[in-house]
Amino acid sequence: MTPAARVSFLGAGPGDPELITLKALRRLREADVVIHDRLVPAEVLDEARKDAELIDVGKSPGRHCRGQSEINWLLVDRARRCGRVARLKGGDPAVFGRLAEEIDAVRTAGIPFEIVPGVTAATAAAARAGISLTERGHSSMVLLASATDHTGRVSGSVDWGLLARAEGTLVFYMGVRALETVTASLTCLGRDPRERALLVERVGRPDERIIAGHLGEIAATARAVGAESPAILITGPTVAGASAPVTVRRVRAALATDLVAAET
Amino acid sequence: MTPAARVSFLGAGPGDPELITLKALRRLREADVVIHDRLVPAEVLDEARKDAELIDVGKSPGRHCRGQSEINWLLVDRARRCGRVARLKGGDPAVFGRLAEEIDAVRTAGIPFEIVPGVTAATAAAARAGISLTERGHSSMVLLASATDHTGRVSGSVDWGLLARAEGTLVFYMGVRALETVTASLTCLGRDPRERALLVERVGRPDERIIAGHLGEIAATARAVGAESPAILITGPTVAGASAPVTVRRVRAALATDLVAAET
Repeated sequence: MTPAARVSFLGAGPGDPELITLKALRRLREADVVIHDRLVPAEVLDEARKDAELIDVGKSPGRHCRGQSEINWLLVDRARRCGRVARLKGGDPAVFGRLAEEIDAVRTAGIPFEIVPGVTAATAAAARAGISLTERGHSSMVLLASATDHTGRVSGSVDWGLLARAEGTLVFYMGVRALETVTASLTCLGRDPRERALLVERVGRPDERIIAGHLGEIAATARAVGAESPAILITGPTVAGASAPVTVRRVRAALATDLVAAET
Repeated sequence: MTPAARVSFLGAGPGDPELITLKALRRLREADVVIHDRLVPAEVLDEARKDAELIDVGKSPGRHCRGQSEINWLLVDRARRCGRVARLKGGDPAVFGRLAEEIDAVRTAGIPFEIVPGVTAATAAAARAGISLTERGHSSMVLLASATDHTGRVSGSVDWGLLARAEGTLVFYMGVRALETVTASLTCLGRDPRERALLVERVGRPDERIIAGHLGEIAATARAVGAESPAILITGPTVAGASAPVTVRRVRAALATDLVAAET
């Protein structure tokens, strides 16, 4: 094993290449090997050293490019043989990023590791929609849930009853195919179908869209406009309080349109 | 009103000055006025323009330096008179950052705004402890809760019964004085006192400490070692699965100690 062997799990942030942290960027530039997911922007990968080995282990929904065990093996093998491995994940590695499995593999192999956190899609989506996820006195809790599993189906390991009853802001990380089932589960179990909801499609990317509506019909709206994965669904008191867009709004990356127009 | 008038709500990230995003840093460097919280590191503030006006509106627990209405007034007044205002908050502005009230003020005044998300303390704390907040099949939900209000007392607007029953990872943003009440509330309402818990004190700062234990006694441990606010309490299945430190561990900012030693 080379003395420099180590694995840095890095959050690349969601979509927008400027949402990476200074620290993650530094580690990426130092790395001998970069093992990255599909959702990491190309502009971020361009920051790797020219002589670094880049390995794409991206998974598309419903299809695995490489199994988790192969990724685990790559992490250990490249750290031992090459030294500094950057494991670059979209968003924050600790939130629905399968980090636990990879840490286990690296730790079992006796390789030192670190985690550099990133901006997770929940807060990036809220930022793009111009809302807060919490509000003093009204919403003192934020629930982040993975609504779909790696096949794109609705997750069976989520407590839908609890989510339907929870007072606070709910944020679902999901594939859009499951949107109808997710919103129906919540409303059947007790959430008001008139509750305001936002779907942020492909957050931070040039083709990002924000779809606003209510729990009862947002799935139909999303289908009508051909919404694509990955998406973030937000519902709760702070969504209701925001002067959110009332229909589909295209948000481009350009500076001028970063500013949410004052809508009083 | 100057044509350049706008407010950028920026997440500075938690503690570690390298955990700011490229985008937040760019907006900070452009700003004519910087209105910042107490928890923003000095190294980050140094990035402001030399001729920019810096206004500290920091609040200490239990004591207000400036009321929220004065902050709201400053945002609107400085944007109108000076142009680009950077409202710099610790962590992510949308998570327990009182963003909703400030957005309301800015929107009502007809001033364009944007939100640049940041790394929130929950994921930064998990990263420093070397754990994931989610685990496929075991923990598909993360609950972020503000355990204490601005006076440092236990929050009355949090559904403690729901938190006690929730399967998933719980993360509390809190002052340490309330730790005993928080853990007692959870265990009285049904959580197992033997459940593993981590307290990350002053995450990302040079005096950061990680205290590991169980829900039933972590408050006593924290008191014994003189833990200080702000702190993040994490409990749930992924804490149990991690090879967490068994007692107090000092974590310094230096590169070498960023690496979690392999403990197999």
